[in-house]
This record gives sequence, structure tokens and C-alpha cells, in this order.
Amino acid sequence: MERVGFIGLGNMGRPMAANIRRRQFPMTVFDLAPGPVAALTELGAESAPDAGAVARASDVVITMLPGPREVSSTVLGPVLDNAKPGALVLDMSTVDPETTDALAKACAERGLGFVDAPVGRLAAHAERGESLFMVGGSDADVARARPLLEAMGSTIHHCGGPGAGTRTKLVNNYLAILLCQMNAEALSLATAFGLDLSKTLEVLHGTTATNGQLLVNWPNKVLKGDVQPGFAIDLAHKDLSLILGAANAARVPLPMAAAGREAFTAARARGMGGQDFSSMLDAQCAAAGVAPPRLPR
Amino acid sequence: MERVGFIGLGNMGRPMAANIRRRQFPMTVFDLAPGPVAALTELGAESAPDAGAVARASDVVITMLPGPREVSSTVLGPVLDNAKPGALVLDMSTVDPETTDALAKACAERGLGFVDAPVGRLAAHAERGESLFMVGGSDADVARARPLLEAMGSTIHHCGGPGAGTRTKLVNNYLAILLCQMNAEALSLATAFGLDLSKTLEVLHGTTATNGQLLVNWPNKVLKGDVQPGFAIDLAHKDLSLILGAANAARVPLPMAAAGREAFTAARARGMGGQDFSSMLDAQCAAAGVAPPRLPR
Amino acid sequence: MERVGFIGLGNMGRPMAANIRRRQFPMTVFDLAPGPVAALTELGAESAPDAGAVARASDVVITMLPGPREVSSTVLGPVLDNAKPGALVLDMSTVDPETTDALAKACAERGLGFVDAPVGRLAAHAERGESLFMVGGSDADVARARPLLEAMGSTIHHCGGPGAGTRTKLVNNYLAILLCQMNAEALSLATAFGLDLSKTLEVLHGTTATNGQLLVNWPNKVLKGDVQPGFAIDLAHKDLSLILGAANAARVPLPMAAAGREAFTAARARGMGGQDFSSMLDAQCAAAGVAPPRLPR
Amino acid sequence: MERVGFIGLGNMGRPMAANIRRRQFPMTVFDLAPGPVAALTELGAESAPDAGAVARASDVVITMLPGPREVSSTVLGPVLDNAKPGALVLDMSTVDPETTDALAKACAERGLGFVDAPVGRLAAHAERGESLFMVGGSDADVARARPLLEAMGSTIHHCGGPGAGTRTKLVNNYLAILLCQMNAEALSLATAFGLDLSKTLEVLHGTTATNGQLLVNWPNKVLKGDVQPGFAIDLAHKDLSLILGAANAARVPLPMAAAGREAFTAARARGMGGQDFSSMLDAQCAAAGVAPPRLPR
Repeated sequence: MERVGFIGLGNMGRPMAANIRRRQFPMTVFDLAPGPVAALTELGAESAPDAGAVARASDVVITMLPGPREVSSTVLGPVLDNAKPGALVLDMSTVDPETTDALAKACAERGLGFVDAPVGRLAAHAERGESLFMVGGSDADVARARPLLEAMGSTIHHCGGPGAGTRTKLVNNYLAILLCQMNAEALSLATAFGLDLSKTLEVLHGTTATNGQLLVNWPNKVLKGDVQPGFAIDLAHKDLSLILGAANAARVPLPMAAAGREAFTAARARGMGGQDFSSMLDAQCAAAGVAPPRLPR
Repeated sequence: MERVGFIGLGNMGRPMAANIRRRQFPMTVFDLAPGPVAALTELGAESAPDAGAVARASDVVITMLPGPREVSSTVLGPVLDNAKPGALVLDMSTVDPETTDALAKACAERGLGFVDAPVGRLAAHAERGESLFMVGGSDADVARARPLLEAMGSTIHHCGGPGAGTRTKLVNNYLAILLCQMNAEALSLATAFGLDLSKTLEVLHGTTATNGQLLVNWPNKVLKGDVQPGFAIDLAHKDLSLILGAANAARVPLPMAAAGREAFTAARARGMGGQDFSSMLDAQCAAAGVAPPRLPR
Repeated sequence: MERVGFIGLGNMGRPMAANIRRRQFPMTVFDLAPGPVAALTELGAESAPDAGAVARASDVVITMLPGPREVSSTVLGPVLDNAKPGALVLDMSTVDPETTDALAKACAERGLGFVDAPVGRLAAHAERGESLFMVGGSDADVARARPLLEAMGSTIHHCGGPGAGTRTKLVNNYLAILLCQMNAEALSLATAFGLDLSKTLEVLHGTTATNGQLLVNWPNKVLKGDVQPGFAIDLAHKDLSLILGAANAARVPLPMAAAGREAFTAARARGMGGQDFSSMLDAQCAAAGVAPPRLPR
Repeated sequence: MERVGFIGLGNMGRPMAANIRRRQFPMTVFDLAPGPVAALTELGAESAPDAGAVARASDVVITMLPGPREVSSTVLGPVLDNAKPGALVLDMSTVDPETTDALAKACAERGLGFVDAPVGRLAAHAERGESLFMVGGSDADVARARPLLEAMGSTIHHCGGPGAGTRTKLVNNYLAILLCQMNAEALSLATAFGLDLSKTLEVLHGTTATNGQLLVNWPNKVLKGDVQPGFAIDLAHKDLSLILGAANAARVPLPMAAAGREAFTAARARGMGGQDFSSMLDAQCAAAGVAPPRLPR
């Protein structure tokens, strides 16, 4: 079995690492927070003092970090400086394509493998080992990463060469996130119109208006009054900013995305950044001066 | 059986009327175009010289007309001036709530019944008697309209009192139409990113990014290169204008809808108004300078 | 001297009519409100019982009404039905091009003159006879209207044939109104940045960032805390809706205008519709969660 | 006289440095391009092999570089590592507030002075020593920089403490740049309406619709058919991206700016990125399908 290093044990990283460790892979971990590190050492992982020490101890180094800045400063510095010959770097963070491409290039120059495999679905899925991964990399590198990905998730999409995972993730999140503002606009209008929420939803789900957010996520979150974050508005806003940045770099105008991003900014200005992204409904209803609709219990 | 009048035998109205007539309801029809009228008289309907004559001959008067202006000038003038005592007016056109409310009020003042029942789904469904109706009206009026609605469609949603059908239709079409521009933005970005369309769709359909347009309509239309209109960009633009007008009257800001409407305007400026609304993909790809993606045959 | 009829004695119409009457033109007026009518009869005007009576008594019939609906129902009905042969209709209301074109056509068919001359500047200018007019019409018709326009205003732009006045007004108001939201965005950002308002304005007025709203209107209104309407957000919103409607009919996409119109809708949803349009600054600052900046006294 | 170092001799930097040198300040310069370096050595400046060497030779180090990345890597590395005790760093690049704040902090920690003084107006003004500067810094630091600023420009605004120059620049450019898209929308609509350009401009300049772009820049550029860049669409787009990034970090929603930025992206997708930013008019007219209007010669 390959020796696995895991850097970044946050809400997503901790359960992902735990699921790998439960399959008995030898593992070395690093995080600044002692709590998640202890959770992994209880499962038999080693604790390393820094990212470089993780790299020195591992055949496969997995990074699951907040954003492009953290990923770049961790991988392009300590990880690559200390990586074993022939090691594989597996970045599972959500970053912009420019960052992923820089990682892939740096790994290739050192003869290291590289796979980008950002995560779809939520922390609850990660706990259950039911994550979805959008994977970019060569066939050989992806084959090498597959046993680890299968330990962490139930759906693995090999989307193309290096960078294809990150790019697919951005396209996916563009739709998943902005559906929240679109649904919010539609339901705030329905509310202002005095329509019954249950009947309206029944109609929408029978036409091409239906969508994953409205069908799957919303009835379990904002529509029953639960705004605890499965995925917070702040994180959704961060993803939208990555998407708009990447699209502008590619000279692809995204007028609806741009309008939607500002709606997320306005929700943050209302102090709602920590709430679930489905609660864009409540932000939009506040802007429209109507009471946010809820499903009957 | 009630005597049915049908005014407006266009792409939708003609098959709807035919399906009622096939259930043997006595019927009088009016349209300015002789072809559709002949199609109905061959099925045994009577041809009337104008809308007033339809009203004089009918217990239930159905209107299926292009927009608010035509509906108002037909119903508020000749139909109501000639309606039989106790008649029911059943408007199935897509109009704004202000127009529907004016019709409902005028009918109520004359002691006539009124039901608004705009149509979901497309002309092909209407041909097969598989339309979806969003219905507003009193329980008694809707019960009276139901046998006719059942002749024309397979799904009947009684959404609330008079006006609830029109309002639900606008909310529904807001989502169904703007999903086209959202999907267009997402797939133009995927194309600029060099992603494989089939793999991208496979990913999207496994997450909350999925939606009715991308799942149902697009694979049968623009993604296989068919831009013949099931529902034309010009009509979608007209509906978006109704929606924005109604939302502005209700003081509900719709920032994404506003951005999306201008994208439809730009597509019309490109000369694409007569194409299927899924071909917003092609308009967006033209704006981004990328080739529109297609599914392999 | 020609006999003048004046229909519509609101905030703008009353002082405009008074300035004509002060030049001794024989005048017949009509308005539903008795107060403004009395103000004009005190100046020697005759009061008529309805719009038709005004038309019967006048060589030139001036209309100054709230919007397209009122203008159409007044001119296309009672005024034209009762107009004297060879009369001139002078519409000074702000309406959409479609309405103006319908008036022009109807007048031409009856051999009547027609001039559209909507008003720039504010009620205070109208009181002082310092209005600005954007005028459309034939040379002969405009020459005939000129003595009246000179009685009411100090700046007369003959923009082109019939309809050119209305169209120029829409283009002008597009800029004047949306500059309010643009300035609001800029100054809310400056405020969030902690910049000093006076210094910021000093810089802006020395570059191409300067604009008429920020230079002329704002220092006398919102920036000194006066939100009494010189031109209310509700009226500005109405004009924006006319503009977007006309642009969409002409297939001209206006993405910034569309975004701006929704900002005005959101301000109305905040209950600010009755405030001066410069107070879009306060609406924007509320959305951004910052205190609106004011100039020192 | 203080010894001056100048790093970055591009379109703006070269004439700015030359104007300082003409006042006889001893000067050391660095740029990767040999041509501009030669132009300065001909005026008596010394050429240094790198940025560190400039810092070692200078009392005041001026940086005029393309963007945040270049400024950070130059100042936070070689300049600060080699700065003389008590030196002053004067950054005149256009960067985001976060970058400026990081420079200010790093200088303060080393006991160095720091002033941010980004430039308003265009390269032609810089040639003539007529630039406008928005200056942030302590009174003492700004007093020290003033003789150099006066050598380069004719208008100096001391906007506040460190960072106030950068922030004022962003607010200023927000307005100056987006006025181009606003004017483009207005004039494309005027063109679609068939209005005469000269008459329309005459009207606009007499109302609060007037603005610096339309009054000063446009008649000398796009409106007479000159699209050579005084300030290119690509650079304007870069500034808009800085502004939106800073606003989103400050949680200030900018809906019109967001819509405008996508219009600039669309112009770049049309291949117009190298043209003057006033030629957003031509991009908008292309989107609307109308011929771009020009002033008569």
C-alpha cells in the first residue's frame, strides 16, 4: 500500500482523511488545528510538524486547503521541495485553473505525478464516504489515485487531463450556486404574487423549470427554515469569484453570473455570509420586502 | 354537453381546439387565418365570422391569443358584450397579471365565470393532448372547465383563485427560460476550458447543478444541432418582458432575470429570434468567440 | 394670437400653462383637480369640463399627462374627435416612442399638426420659465409651437421630425437617471474605503469621471441630506421602464440599464420611491451596510 | 537634492521619469526593455542592472509597474531588501488596496517612508508633465514626495493616509471607465432610434446627463473614428477587475459595475482589447446590430 500524506484537515479534509485511514493506508497528516490532527492520530495516523515533513514521509501527498493562495504556498514550496522521487501530488482543493496549471507544470518538471480532484457534494457526504470527485490527470496518475478516491467517495468522474477536474468543478459550481439566486428570485416573486408554495413547487417540478437545488437541497434546508450551512454563502461567493476570474481570463462574458455574484455580495453585506447558500432566498425576500416562504411542517 | 367557443387557432390553439372537438363537444371557432378554421370545421366545428358571434353561440368561451393586447381587445369588447348569461370565460393565453385581473373583474361584474389556465409544455404536447395547465379560478368555475382541460392536457394544476394560473405560469417560465441562458454561460465556459461535453453533462447531472432544460430539452434540441423552434427566442423574450414588468409592478427586484433578458435581446439582435430558446447556447458561444458544443451523434 | 388649450395641470403642467397665460395667449384648461384649475382661471384662463371641450375651443392643444396610457386615451379619443380643422397637437408628456408615433400618425391622417416636446430639467425650472425642451416635428409645426415653447422655457432643441423629441428625451434620461446609481456605487465604495467625501469629489471633478448629476444635482440634494423629490425615484423608475421597453423593441441590449433598473426597483421595495432620485445613494449605502456620506455644512 | 530611483519605464513611467530627470534630480533607473532605459541615460540617468541596485543607490524609490503581482514581487523583495535607511518608497502603479496596504505595512516595519500615488489622466499628459496624482501617505512623506510629483504632474490631490491614493484611484476609474459603457448604451440606442448624433450630444451636454467621457474624451477619439488607445479596453478591464475585487472584499455590491465589466469582457472576446476604451461604443453597436455613429468632419 502507498504511504499517504494528508495536508488540511478542515470540515471536508478531516472526514476524507479518516475514510482513507479506515482502509488501513499508512498516513501522515498535518494541520494547524490540533483537534482534527488528534482525530486522525486516534485512527492510527502519524502527525507531522509541517507540510515538508508530510512530503518526506509520503508516496501520495493529498492537499485539501481553503483556496489558491494556501495551495500555492504549500505545494510550490514545502511539498515540492521535500517530495520523494516519483511521488504523486493529489490536490483536492477548489482553486482556479491558473493555480492548478501551475501545480501540474511544477510537478511535471520534477517528474512527479499530479492529479486535481476537487470535491462535489457536501461535508455530510464526505463523512459517509459518498463524495463526488471531478478528476483531471493522466490515465496512469488517475489509476494510482483511484484507490484513495474510492475510499473517500462513491462517484468518480475522470474528466480529462491535468486541470480538467478543477475546470469541471467551476462549471458545476457555477450552475449549482447560481441556481440558488435564480430560485430565490422565482420564489420571492411567487410570494409577492400570493401563491401557495407547495402548489408552486408541484408545478415547477413537472416542467423544465425543475432543478437540483429546488428539488433536492432546498426542501431540506431553507424551505423548512434550516439555514445552518451545508455550504455557506461565504464559500459560494468565493467560488463565484474564482469562476468569474477564470471566465474573464478566458474572455467568456457571463452576464447572469456577474449579476448573481453581486447578489451574494449583498447577502454578505446583510450579515448572512455564514448561512447555507439556499438562504439566498431569505436575502432576496428581504430585498423585495416580502416574508420568506416556508413549507408546512 | 356544454357548447364550446374557441378564439385563436394558432400553433397551440388549433391542436387544443381539435382535442376538445374530438371529445364531441359542440364547438364554434374563430380565427383570422382560414387554414386552421378549415381544420376545425373538418372535425365538425362551426365557423363564426367574429369573436362576438362565438360568444353568442357558446356556454364556455376559450381564448388562446398572442398576448395581453389581443386578449384585452377581444374579451373586454366583443366577448363580454355578447356573452350568454352564466357563461364561462376560459383564457389560456400567456398574459400579465394585470390583464388577467382585469378580465376576472369584468366577468365577475357581469355574473360570468372566469378561469385563467395558461399552458405549460410545447406544441408537440398539445397535439398529443398532453399539455400541462396552471389554473386559477373558483372551485366551481374550475370544476366546470375541467372536462375541457382534460380533453386538452394530461396535467392540471389548480393553483388558486382567479389570476393564480397566470402568476404561476410567469414564475415557471422565469425559471425555464432563464435556465437556457445559465446553461449557455456554463457550457460556453466549459467549451473555452476545452472540456468534453458528454463528460461535463455526466457530472452536472449527478449534482444539484442539474436542471430540466439541460436534462430534457437541450439534448433533443441545440446539443444535437436542432435549432427549429419548439419555443422560439422571440416568444421567450416576450415572456421575460411580461415577467419583469409584473415583478417591477410588485416591487420585486430580479437582477439575474434582468441580465438574462438583455442576453435574449442580444440574441434577437443577432437575428436568432426565430430559433429554439435552447440556442441561446449558440448566441452565448458567439459572444464568447468559441464554437458551440454539440453531442456526438 | 392662437387660442391655446392645456390639458394636465400637475407639478409641471400648472407652471408651464401659467407662463403661457402670462404672455396673454387666450387659454382653456382642463384637469381633474380643482386647485390647479383655479390657479389658471385666476390668471384669466377659461375652465373646460373635459378634454373634448378644450379641443373644441383651441387652435393649439397642449397635453402634459402622467404617461402613455393617459396620453393615448386623451388624445386618440376626445381631443382628436373634437379638434378644430388645422389644429396643432403639442404633447409634452414623457411617453414611449410607440405612443408618440401613434399620435403623430393619427394627427397626420386628420390633417392636424403634431409636435412632441417632452421636458428636461425640473419643476423649479418650469416655474421660472427656464425649462428645456426636446422637440420633434416638421419645421412648420415646430415654428408654430415655438412662441409657446419660448413662453415656457429657455432652451429649445429641435431634434428632428415627429417622434425625435420623445426619443431624445429617453436617451437623455437614460444617462441622467442611471448616473445616480453609478455615482451611488462609486460613493458607497469610497465610504466603505474610509475616504473623505469632499476630497474624493474634488478629485472626480478634475477627471473624465465627472458628470452632471455629481456636479450639479447631488451637492444640492442627497449630499447635503435633502431627499425631497426634485425628481422622485418612482418617476425615474417609470422612465427607465419606458427606456428598456423601447430599447428591447428596437433590439438594443442595455445590460447596465437593466442592472440599474433593478436597483431602482430595490430602492422602491425599501420604501424610498417618493424620495429624490439622488437618494439612490442612500439605498445603495443601505445595501452595502455603510452610512451614507454627507457634505459638511 | 534627493537621489531618485525609478523602476518601470513603460508608456507612463518613461515620460514621468524623464520629467523628473529634467529637473536635475540624480537618478538611477531599471527596466527590462533597453529602449526606455537608453532614453533616460541620454538625459543623464544611471542604468542599474536590477531593482535591488536601484534601491541601493536611491533616497526615493519610485515604482511604476503593470499590476499588483509585479509591484509585490519588486517592492516586497529586492527593493525592501536593499533600501537605504530612511528611504521613501513611492508606488505610482495602479494596484488593489490589499497590495498597497501590504507595502505600507512592510515599509513601516522597516522604518521607511511610503506614499501611494497612482496616476490619473493619460500618457499624453504624462509627456507634458500634466499628470494628475491621487496621493496617500503621512503629511511628512507626502511633503518629501511633492517636488518629484510636481516635476511629473500639474494636479496633486493628497487624499489621506497610506492607501488613500490607491482607493481614490479605484473609485475614480470606476466612474471614468464605466461611463464608456453607459455612453455606449445611450448612443447605440440613439442610433437605433435614427437620431442625429450632433443634435443628441448638444442636448445631453445641456442637462445632468453630461459627463467627462462624453464631453472631453469621446469627441477626440471614437466619435471621430480614432480608436488608437489612449487607454486600452484591456487595461480598463484590468482596472474594473481590481475594483470589483476590492468591492467584493469590502462587501459592497456593485450591480452596474458587474454588468459593465462583462461588457468589457465581451468586447475583448470580439478582439477589441487593444482599442481605446471609448470604442466600447463600437462593441455595443456591434452587439445591437447598428452602425456606430461618428461626428461629421
